[in-house]
Amino acid sequence: MRHRLVLTVLALTVVAFAQVAGAEVDREKLLKEPGVYATFAVFKVGDQWSQMDKEARAGGVAEVKKVFQKHADNLTVDTYLLRGLSEKADFFLRVHSKEMLHNQNFLVDLMGTTFGKALRNTDTFNGITKALNYVPKFPDDLKTELKTPPPQGNPYVVVVPVRKDADWWLMPQDARTALMKEHADATLVYLKTVKRKLYHSSGLDDLDFITYFETAKLDDFNNLVTALLQVKENHHNKQFGEPTLLGTIRPLDEILEILSR
Amino acid sequence: MRHRLVLTVLALTVVAFAQVAGAEVDREKLLKEPGVYATFAVFKVGDQWSQMDKEARAGGVAEVKKVFQKHADNLTVDTYLLRGLSEKADFFLRVHSKEMLHNQNFLVDLMGTTFGKALRNTDTFNGITKALNYVPKFPDDLKTELKTPPPQGNPYVVVVPVRKDADWWLMPQDARTALMKEHADATLVYLKTVKRKLYHSSGLDDLDFITYFETAKLDDFNNLVTALLQVKENHHNKQFGEPTLLGTIRPLDEILEILSR
Amino acid sequence: MRHRLVLTVLALTVVAFAQVAGAEVDREKLLKEPGVYATFAVFKVGDQWSQMDKEARAGGVAEVKKVFQKHADNLTVDTYLLRGLSEKADFFLRVHSKEMLHNQNFLVDLMGTTFGKALRNTDTFNGITKALNYVPKFPDDLKTELKTPPPQGNPYVVVVPVRKDADWWLMPQDARTALMKEHADATLVYLKTVKRKLYHSSGLDDLDFITYFETAKLDDFNNLVTALLQVKENHHNKQFGEPTLLGTIRPLDEILEILSR
Amino acid sequence: MRHRLVLTVLALTVVAFAQVAGAEVDREKLLKEPGVYATFAVFKVGDQWSQMDKEARAGGVAEVKKVFQKHADNLTVDTYLLRGLSEKADFFLRVHSKEMLHNQNFLVDLMGTTFGKALRNTDTFNGITKALNYVPKFPDDLKTELKTPPPQGNPYVVVVPVRKDADWWLMPQDARTALMKEHADATLVYLKTVKRKLYHSSGLDDLDFITYFETAKLDDFNNLVTALLQVKENHHNKQFGEPTLLGTIRPLDEILEILSR
Amino acid sequence: MRHRLVLTVLALTVVAFAQVAGAEVDREKLLKEPGVYATFAVFKVGDQWSQMDKEARAGGVAEVKKVFQKHADNLTVDTYLLRGLSEKADFFLRVHSKEMLHNQNFLVDLMGTTFGKALRNTDTFNGITKALNYVPKFPDDLKTELKTPPPQGNPYVVVVPVRKDADWWLMPQDARTALMKEHADATLVYLKTVKRKLYHSSGLDDLDFITYFETAKLDDFNNLVTALLQVKENHHNKQFGEPTLLGTIRPLDEILEILSR
Repeated sequence: MRHRLVLTVLALTVVAFAQVAGAEVDREKLLKEPGVYATFAVFKVGDQWSQMDKEARAGGVAEVKKVFQKHADNLTVDTYLLRGLSEKADFFLRVHSKEMLHNQNFLVDLMGTTFGKALRNTDTFNGITKALNYVPKFPDDLKTELKTPPPQGNPYVVVVPVRKDADWWLMPQDARTALMKEHADATLVYLKTVKRKLYHSSGLDDLDFITYFETAKLDDFNNLVTALLQVKENHHNKQFGEPTLLGTIRPLDEILEILSR
Repeated sequence: MRHRLVLTVLALTVVAFAQVAGAEVDREKLLKEPGVYATFAVFKVGDQWSQMDKEARAGGVAEVKKVFQKHADNLTVDTYLLRGLSEKADFFLRVHSKEMLHNQNFLVDLMGTTFGKALRNTDTFNGITKALNYVPKFPDDLKTELKTPPPQGNPYVVVVPVRKDADWWLMPQDARTALMKEHADATLVYLKTVKRKLYHSSGLDDLDFITYFETAKLDDFNNLVTALLQVKENHHNKQFGEPTLLGTIRPLDEILEILSR
Repeated sequence: MRHRLVLTVLALTVVAFAQVAGAEVDREKLLKEPGVYATFAVFKVGDQWSQMDKEARAGGVAEVKKVFQKHADNLTVDTYLLRGLSEKADFFLRVHSKEMLHNQNFLVDLMGTTFGKALRNTDTFNGITKALNYVPKFPDDLKTELKTPPPQGNPYVVVVPVRKDADWWLMPQDARTALMKEHADATLVYLKTVKRKLYHSSGLDDLDFITYFETAKLDDFNNLVTALLQVKENHHNKQFGEPTLLGTIRPLDEILEILSR
Repeated sequence: MRHRLVLTVLALTVVAFAQVAGAEVDREKLLKEPGVYATFAVFKVGDQWSQMDKEARAGGVAEVKKVFQKHADNLTVDTYLLRGLSEKADFFLRVHSKEMLHNQNFLVDLMGTTFGKALRNTDTFNGITKALNYVPKFPDDLKTELKTPPPQGNPYVVVVPVRKDADWWLMPQDARTALMKEHADATLVYLKTVKRKLYHSSGLDDLDFITYFETAKLDDFNNLVTALLQVKENHHNKQFGEPTLLGTIRPLDEILEILSR
Repeated sequence: MRHRLVLTVLALTVVAFAQVAGAEVDREKLLKEPGVYATFAVFKVGDQWSQMDKEARAGGVAEVKKVFQKHADNLTVDTYLLRGLSEKADFFLRVHSKEMLHNQNFLVDLMGTTFGKALRNTDTFNGITKALNYVPKFPDDLKTELKTPPPQGNPYVVVVPVRKDADWWLMPQDARTALMKEHADATLVYLKTVKRKLYHSSGLDDLDFITYFETAKLDDFNNLVTALLQVKENHHNKQFGEPTLLGTIRPLDEILEILSR
């Protein structure tokens, strides 16, 4: 049972942190509304960081926090630890704002800090949120079920970038809606344990979608993805993952502490 | 509203810079005429640059500007910041001239400066401009609509390299014109908010086309690309992006300042 | 005959080590039960390790062992040497626990040690164990044969990550069971010399399965894989290996000693 | 008009250099005959070269020239600058001799010099020249046209490695000859402005052909490649380029001077 | 004619070296028998080696030879120079023994020497020799022809890793034998000038076969591979080369001398 306790404590810390970080910009609105630009910036820390002495690192951490504060009225940032579960990177940031330029200016400032200079930016995904495309045409009972409130305080995050094939995009709208209904049906039993968010990326990146998930139950998440592999839409995924990012939601302070060991 | 203001100021700066930089060679003509050679040179800055002391960096910046001036009667150069929005590079240059050798000589000089030695050239796309292939056969009203003046003072840039499959190239000319008309139709509603330019690359690079876009509205651009994914031409894109370069148009001085932090 | 002796001594050492390492958490249960999370963490050692002086390295080894002990009541770790048989890495760890967070916390601690800082994490595979999917529908005699006790004390390990195509996942369950029966039939003659374990990875990694093998007879293993290439399921392997990890099961101490030369 | 002048001067320098370099071995014969082995060795210069002091670099240049002279009775070497037009490398050498061992011994000596130790060998293509396969079966007027003398003093070089698919190789000889006649027809109008040479690579490299071009008119070259994309042979190009090398023909001295800045 | 002489002298040196190196283990048997494990270990030398002083390097060479001797009663090692003809690596070793563990232990010892620490292991191929699969069903005259004694004292080596597609493995045995007969027929005229050896790799590596060739006539080898591209088996090569390793057979001493320049 002990590890459940650890997960709960971790989850509460995350919620607490999110409330502080979102104090200035209206975080809730940014995370709900369409027309919001998101940048997922993925980083690996270079040796130079852990080779610095303690004092210099403490100064570096303070500098990072100042950059977060400087941009806090334009954007909101979520922080995630990948190290240990992904060889590709150590952590990533999810940045939301009303203008892509804000995301760039924040990241450029971050990468100009002492800590930022020790980072290698291994991946960046750009997307925009939109009103739901297919749901309006779904049957009413499905629409209702899809409103199941998502779980809160999830410790795990999974990000899966997706690219569709030409057949998908050239399919008549009705046929695509039918496939998306089959997709939605497959997800229903997981709505209570897996929280989802969708970003559109065509033209903003070498992707069509960024699919973002939070959960406390990775076994359920594995079952959800397996269920999605078994619906016909799967024939049209030219890219699904590659990279899949599996990590844990952690406050900035904890991530900086872990990477400073 | 504040970020709109930022975008406008930025856009004005860009226009001002372009006028100065294009003082010697006839920039307007180079950007309009067929038979012009373009090189997109993409760079990442190495650690050695930010580790130099301030004075040495100031000297390095002066050296870079001298190289720009030395070649100003042969070519025109536009400058773009990628850092923050692309993990692949920090910035890129778009060089136009009447002879590819000029592009090489300019870039060789640039890479021989102190700043240039700190750069890693992560990508280079070469192309040539041509008279429009398909438009002459389009219906008159489409021709007229395609003359909609493009937007000015756009802060965002997107570059999408494209390679077509063998079926595309072996299609009868008429069939290809029909597909390109469908393509042109899909772009009409975006002509006012997205500016476009096309370069031909077959044999000059591992590409067939470099498609270049400027916009102030990335949401429109995302919709434009989604619309293009839904026309039959999309079946023939062997490569579309990979890499897609998303960045902002910024004067050389600002880019050098950002990379010197 | 001498090399047989070497293999036997090596195998006994491995068994002895496993018993010590599994003293705290119930190792046998973790390796048998469904719902257990596994992380395969693959590493290459950087030059800085072998350049340290002997004393510093001895301190580093002690630090590593402390990390193993600190997490011993949450998880069990198996250790494998790849160097010499794979260019991709020097060694890997197989971590099992009841919660993926334990795996991450252990690996984050390991990577924070002096030894860990010299490591490059070249690959990580995440998976979960599950109750057998297809076996319940197999004929009784096949079920009985599949219960053949696996060989013990095997010196060699092979890990083959697998990804199935969309046709596989969209096949009716009966058709898939028939293909899996054909697969199981092909493995029967190798049950006595090759030990197997299966992990499910969809959504937790860019994989569908991690297949894990131990054997003393690599010629038998080569024949087993060749037999599996000859059953119809092979048409649906989008990825099979890439990377295949071939190595030997060795105690942590021996691996650390070899990498410290 | 000024850049035309530059091109002409450059071209004359190249011709002059070629005559000196080919003084010992019969360069003309090597470049015409079948059964000659060619190695294209592509290099990027590391930072250590430009960080050396002037004197040490001058010594390094002298060492390189001695290696060229030492092997001059066995082989001929052409030199090309890629920097600025290709991110992949800085320059390449094209080596011709009657025995592949000569090519290796020359390159091994070159890579053992101070300059050579600063090089990273980013690509190597090996091939052999052969008598023309298809031409003997072409109609007489086509044969005559194909004898059009190629242009001399070209400043630009393009190298395009090619790999054919299994359908190409398994096609009856007559069908292949018909496709090659269509290919040859498409090239006729470019014979006066584009010089070509073909090398066979199957088994000597991961290629089937190395196609080599020289021209003063890159617009013509772009049109030539576009024409070749439009003949049926294009269906059988498994690889075309990747990498395409675009550069300029320059004497060794000039290349060494440019890379020493 | 001079280069023929060079080749002959080189070839004789190789034979002489092979006889010394194989003094302890029965080299002839290992190279003929089935059930022998082979590891092809491919290396690139790092800068640190050539930066060491002469004395330190001499010590390093002595250390390497000691490792070769220590393992000489378990295995036999052949040595090949790639530098100059392949950008991928500088040299490779072909190790044969009766147990894969011997190969690993030898390579682990080698990589623990001063020289070994300067190496980057760029590729490793593992395989096992087997009795011939298809030959027993071939017509008698073909069987006789296939017994043509292979050429001796060849200076060149080519290694081509191969992976077959699922259709190949699922083909009825008779159909595969027919395709292999067609393959064997195509090789007959080259038996006198090209020596071949086959290794099976399924499950031991991300390959199905390692095909190994020695020859003095690379033009014949190019013709042989071209002939093999023209038999129906070629439709089933999912991978053929990538990397193809082209090099020369050279004694260890010569390779160490070349890499020490």
